[in-house]
Amino acid sequence: MNVKRAGNQTVVFSDPPVILSSYSVVGPMEGKGPLASTFDRIWQDNKQGEESWEKAESKMLQEAMQGAITSSGILEDEIDFMLAGDLMNQIISSNYAARQFGFPFIGLYGACSTMALGMAVGSMLMDGQYARNVLVGTCSHHDSAERQFRMPTEHGNQRAMSAQWTVTGAGSVILGKGKTGPRITSATIGRILDYGEKDISNMGGAMAPAVADTILNHLRDLQRSPSDYDLIISGDLGAVGLSLCKEILLKSGIPIGQEFSDCGVKIYDQSQDVHAGASGCGCSAVVFAGEIMQKLRQGIFRRVLLVSSGALHSPTSAFQGESIPAIGHAVAIEA
Amino acid sequence: MNVKRAGNQTVVFSDPPVILSSYSVVGPMEGKGPLASTFDRIWQDNKQGEESWEKAESKMLQEAMQGAITSSGILEDEIDFMLAGDLMNQIISSNYAARQFGFPFIGLYGACSTMALGMAVGSMLMDGQYARNVLVGTCSHHDSAERQFRMPTEHGNQRAMSAQWTVTGAGSVILGKGKTGPRITSATIGRILDYGEKDISNMGGAMAPAVADTILNHLRDLQRSPSDYDLIISGDLGAVGLSLCKEILLKSGIPIGQEFSDCGVKIYDQSQDVHAGASGCGCSAVVFAGEIMQKLRQGIFRRVLLVSSGALHSPTSAFQGESIPAIGHAVAIEA
Repeated sequence: MNVKRAGNQTVVFSDPPVILSSYSVVGPMEGKGPLASTFDRIWQDNKQGEESWEKAESKMLQEAMQGAITSSGILEDEIDFMLAGDLMNQIISSNYAARQFGFPFIGLYGACSTMALGMAVGSMLMDGQYARNVLVGTCSHHDSAERQFRMPTEHGNQRAMSAQWTVTGAGSVILGKGKTGPRITSATIGRILDYGEKDISNMGGAMAPAVADTILNHLRDLQRSPSDYDLIISGDLGAVGLSLCKEILLKSGIPIGQEFSDCGVKIYDQSQDVHAGASGCGCSAVVFAGEIMQKLRQGIFRRVLLVSSGALHSPTSAFQGESIPAIGHAVAIEA
Repeated sequence: MNVKRAGNQTVVFSDPPVILSSYSVVGPMEGKGPLASTFDRIWQDNKQGEESWEKAESKMLQEAMQGAITSSGILEDEIDFMLAGDLMNQIISSNYAARQFGFPFIGLYGACSTMALGMAVGSMLMDGQYARNVLVGTCSHHDSAERQFRMPTEHGNQRAMSAQWTVTGAGSVILGKGKTGPRITSATIGRILDYGEKDISNMGGAMAPAVADTILNHLRDLQRSPSDYDLIISGDLGAVGLSLCKEILLKSGIPIGQEFSDCGVKIYDQSQDVHAGASGCGCSAVVFAGEIMQKLRQGIFRRVLLVSSGALHSPTSAFQGESIPAIGHAVAIEA
C-alpha cells in the first residue's frame, strides 16, 4: 500500500513537521497552580479588560497565537493555514481570533481533544506539502464554559466529586520546517466510543475508554510499548478517568506504569479544590505548550505521546437523554 | 517552493481524489422544490420517527453517509477518515453519526461552509497519501436550527425579507482512488472577512465579501477566469448575497456572468415563500451531492467551482454586539 500509514489508524510522517514555537496563556487560578512557572503569560483576572468572558476567551487565544507567531520568527505571510477550535457554541472564540489574523482558516470541533486534533491534521497538511507553516491553537475559559454547559457561573453550583474544573487557558504552536526542535512523527486520529455514561459530572469516566482505545491502537499500529515513551499523557481525564483508563490498558495487556499521566491531573494542586482535576480544550493545550515543550527542548523527554481527550455531547443532547460520545486523538512528538 | 500550492491560498492536487459516490437526503419541503428529482431520498416528515429534530438531523446525516458508502462499493474497513460538521452546538449531529459508524473522526466547524471545507481537507488527506478513502458529509435541519439560532420553532416568528430558510438535508461523498469519475483538482481554504454586518437576518449580505474574496483568490492563484468553469456556485448566499457578491466581483474586474449561481437560490421556488432563499450546511451539501454530481457524471459540467459559504457567529456573539465573521471555502471539481 502506497499510503503513509501504519496499522489501522496511525499515520506516519515522512518529513515530520518541527514545532517551531509554542506559547501558553492562562488565567489567575492556573497561574497559582504547580505548573505556573511553565506558562508564558498569566492573566491577573479572568476578563483582562474585555466586556465578557467569551470575548476574553477569544482574546486569550489571540494572545497565545500571537506569542507563538512572534517566537517562531516566521513572518505572518508564511503561515498558510490556521487550525483552531474551542468549546463555545459555533467555536466563536476561534472564529473571532481567526478574523483578527486573516489566515486561511480551518475550524475544528473536537471539544477538549482539539489540541492534538489540530496538531495531527496540521502535521498532515505540512508533511503532505500543502503548507509552509501551520498555526494551531485552542482555548477554554472556566466562566464561559460554566454558564454554557452547566449553571449560571455566579450561582456557584455545588460540584460532584467526579467533576472537573474547566481551565482558563490558551495554547498555540507553529508547525514548520527546520533542522532542530521537537518533531511530530506520527498521529492517531481517534474513533468515537460511548459506553453509555450519561453523567455530565463524570466526563473523565465517559472519556476513559476512547483514550484507552487510541493508546492501544497507536501502540499496536507502531508495534511499540509504553516504555518506548518517556511520557504518555492524556488531555483531561482527571483523577477518575485516568485511573479507569489505566485499568482498561492493564486489562488489555498493556504494561502501562509511571510514564502515564494526565494534563488534567497536573495543572491544579490539591489545595485548589477542583475535585477530579482540570478539563477544557485549554487544559492539554497549555500543559503541552508549557511544561511538555520545555522538557522536550531540554532533552528531558525524548519521545512523548499526547492524547487529548474530548467529550462530544452538548447540553441539548444531554437533556434529550443521550449518553456522552467520547474521543481521543494522539500525536507522538520526538525531541 | 516544494509545496503543492498555487499563488497565495490555493492547493493543487498531484493525484486528484475521485468522488466515488454521493448521496443526498432531504426533508419534505426540499422534496417539493425544483431540485426534487436530483435527491436520492426524500423524507415524508421532518422527524422520520425520531423523538426530536436534533436526533432526526443526526439520523439524516447517517442515512446520507450510509448511502454514499453503499453506492461507492467501498468496504467500511477501507474508509480511513470521516470528516463532518454541522450547525448544532458542539456539532452533535455529526458526533452521534460518527458514533454509529466508528471511523476515525475529524470534527469540523465551518457553519454552512462545511461541505466544501470537508471536501478540501479530505482531498489533502487523500492526495497526501494519509488515507485510502475518506467519508465527508454534513447536514442541517430547519427546525433544530430555528430554535437554536432564532426563536422557538413553533412560534412561527415573522421573517425578514433578507432572511433565508435553513435546509433540512444531508449530503455526503466518498473520496477515493479510481480511473473515472469527477475529481477534486484544487481547493482554496478561505479566510474570514467581516464587514461589520450585525443583522442575523441578512447572512447572505454578511457572507458575500468572504465568498467574493475566495473566488478572487482562487482565480488569481490558478490564473483562470470565470469562463474556465461551467459553473461557479456559492453555498448559501441567497438572492441578497448572490447579487452583492456578483457586484463585488464585477467591481474587482472579474467578468462573472451566467455561470455564477448559488445553491441557496436553486433549492426552493418562489411559491415556497422562503424569502431570500435557502441556507444551512445541508444546502450546498445536497445541491452538490444531487444535481451537480449528476451533471458532472453526465458530462454536462466539465469543471465546477463549489464555494460553500459560512457565517461564523453564534447567538451569544450576536447578543454581545459582535458582527458576523464570514468565510468561503472552494473546491474545483472536474469531470
